[in-house]
Amino acid sequence: MKIILGIDPGSRITGYGIIRSNGQRHHYIASGSIVATRGKNLPERLAYIFQDITTVIQKYAPTDTAIESVFMAKNAASALTLGQARGAAIAALVNNGLPVAEYATRLVKQTVSGYGAADKAQVQYMVKLLLNIIGSPSVDAADALAVAICHAQSQYTKQLLQPHLALAL
Amino acid sequence: MKIILGIDPGSRITGYGIIRSNGQRHHYIASGSIVATRGKNLPERLAYIFQDITTVIQKYAPTDTAIESVFMAKNAASALTLGQARGAAIAALVNNGLPVAEYATRLVKQTVSGYGAADKAQVQYMVKLLLNIIGSPSVDAADALAVAICHAQSQYTKQLLQPHLALAL
Repeated sequence: MKIILGIDPGSRITGYGIIRSNGQRHHYIASGSIVATRGKNLPERLAYIFQDITTVIQKYAPTDTAIESVFMAKNAASALTLGQARGAAIAALVNNGLPVAEYATRLVKQTVSGYGAADKAQVQYMVKLLLNIIGSPSVDAADALAVAICHAQSQYTKQLLQPHLALAL
Repeated sequence: MKIILGIDPGSRITGYGIIRSNGQRHHYIASGSIVATRGKNLPERLAYIFQDITTVIQKYAPTDTAIESVFMAKNAASALTLGQARGAAIAALVNNGLPVAEYATRLVKQTVSGYGAADKAQVQYMVKLLLNIIGSPSVDAADALAVAICHAQSQYTKQLLQPHLALAL
């Protein structure tokens, strides 16, 4: 049984979601969002992201973490802001000795909705359905839960393939 | 007497430099560079930056830290990479409870060379001269030492102005 922390860093809001999963069945534990803009200056904003994620890790003791990989950004200015938030978030994960898995956005959307180009509302709807969440997680929290589900499924599939690979050798 | 750690995060190499200063006289302590690209994947590369800066902090116990502010980047892809490195570096500073001061590139160049648009070679030359460094710090380390000097001077100027401001009130 894994406890997976999914993170969705954004330039303004960083979503996080924690699930417990055996790869086939996923249970919702918690989710939320960190508003980075409440800091006065850049170091303060990044400190909030780093410290809040550290607090989440201490509270829920995840065994795995997962994050969406980013290949494109709208423009250089927003890419820099997003990059800084991602850098601080990933630093919090590795500082706690946690492995970080990266998944392409397409795969995350494909996993939870069957459609690689699903929009945010569709992802939010499917995450709520898959995890039997009462109430609605925010869009950012839903994205974080989606990448956690993606990690759970992906690890399970790998594990299923392992014996066959061993036989083939 | 302050011990100032200057950081120059880059997408490939993060320079660092430590000086001891009373605001007027600056003494070179150490400098070096962290090659982020030696990590296999993004979390590993950011972990190197975070951990190496943490090690530098533990070794030299700085009282202040300074970093150049970035407003522009060549393109979205390089801005994202640079942002992630900056985010991990700043996270290491704030995680150690250190204040982080940001200075515009123009001011840093102006401070060490008298010319706000000085090139990297000129900054490197002047840093070597100002700190009486035997041998040459790398370009990245020189940039990091330059922002540390900028912080030292800027804090000293503020302190000098303080009594006048108090009298004026």
